[in-house]
Amino acid sequence: MYKFSESLSELQKQLQLLPSIGEKSAQRLAYFLINQPKDKVLALAESIVTAINNCKPCSQCFLLSDTDPCKICTDPDRNEETLCVVESTRDIILIESTNEFKGRYFVLGNLLSPVSGIGPHQIRIPELEKYLQKNHITEVILAISPSTEGETTIHFIAEFLKEKDKKITRLSTGIPYGSDMEYTGAATLMNALRRRYPV
Amino acid sequence: MYKFSESLSELQKQLQLLPSIGEKSAQRLAYFLINQPKDKVLALAESIVTAINNCKPCSQCFLLSDTDPCKICTDPDRNEETLCVVESTRDIILIESTNEFKGRYFVLGNLLSPVSGIGPHQIRIPELEKYLQKNHITEVILAISPSTEGETTIHFIAEFLKEKDKKITRLSTGIPYGSDMEYTGAATLMNALRRRYPV
Repeated sequence: MYKFSESLSELQKQLQLLPSIGEKSAQRLAYFLINQPKDKVLALAESIVTAINNCKPCSQCFLLSDTDPCKICTDPDRNEETLCVVESTRDIILIESTNEFKGRYFVLGNLLSPVSGIGPHQIRIPELEKYLQKNHITEVILAISPSTEGETTIHFIAEFLKEKDKKITRLSTGIPYGSDMEYTGAATLMNALRRRYPV
Repeated sequence: MYKFSESLSELQKQLQLLPSIGEKSAQRLAYFLINQPKDKVLALAESIVTAINNCKPCSQCFLLSDTDPCKICTDPDRNEETLCVVESTRDIILIESTNEFKGRYFVLGNLLSPVSGIGPHQIRIPELEKYLQKNHITEVILAISPSTEGETTIHFIAEFLKEKDKKITRLSTGIPYGSDMEYTGAATLMNALRRRYPV
């Protein structure tokens, strides 16, 4: 803490709320900011305020957006029958960057984790059910990481959708495209062997 | 860039101005902020605005401070005849944390670096001269790092103060106190041998 300037001391304290910013980094960051041109620093502060005020989850798909409903839910050029279920808004950015998917999204907000006490009501399963009642979806793509929590979530949703007469798919698992087999872990290799396909 | 929320996209762009924050880190940080409680995020933004508005260099010693003159320049309990010359406000925090020095400070703002074009006028040498004219200083401690730029600065200031009839000192150099000699570099060891002192 910096006893000669309360405002600098407070800034340092606030910056420590950021992820992986400890006391020393917060001090460095505070000094960096205080030495920048005033208009640049004020622009940063303003962008924080604007984002926290304007950017909210879409009431239909829960994508973080400045408009409600979001631009994807209201885009008439997108396929309305394919729904891509993801963990977070960030996954949507990743998928959109491939230009491969032109349907709708639904953001779960989290993955099931019995260990951390995250159950179906913490991950928008009820909201997903409502979405599927309101919209005519024929295929649900579970674009969820094949991690422990991801697999749990994928199997839970697949089970829950079983009787709803929809095609349920998930992203392909295997050796990362373009990578070297030598550096692939045993679990990935085993999975890739089991999922081998004709050339 | 995030095309579904202009405010999030702008926040990400602004966060990239921070040191060692690239595009990916800025995205992570933006999502982190947007998912925090609103009052916490607004408090952070406010602390940035308050600091950049209130925290300014003291007009006497150039310490970053909310008051002018700063609390050190106006502290009657501090020795007025010993001046500690440092590179930055952060060095003052370090020195203050030792509780070893009870005099006044002067912040140069930078170190001489002919390679980067930083000359005496970029590092408050004229301001230091004015300070010494106004105040009765008997000892000037050059508390500056023994780096290339630091050594250049130390020798420049020592030369410039030569005829002013003041005691000029610098911080001791040698093997870091409490460390293992085995891990000391050759330059440090050579310096320590030359500066050996009676036990």
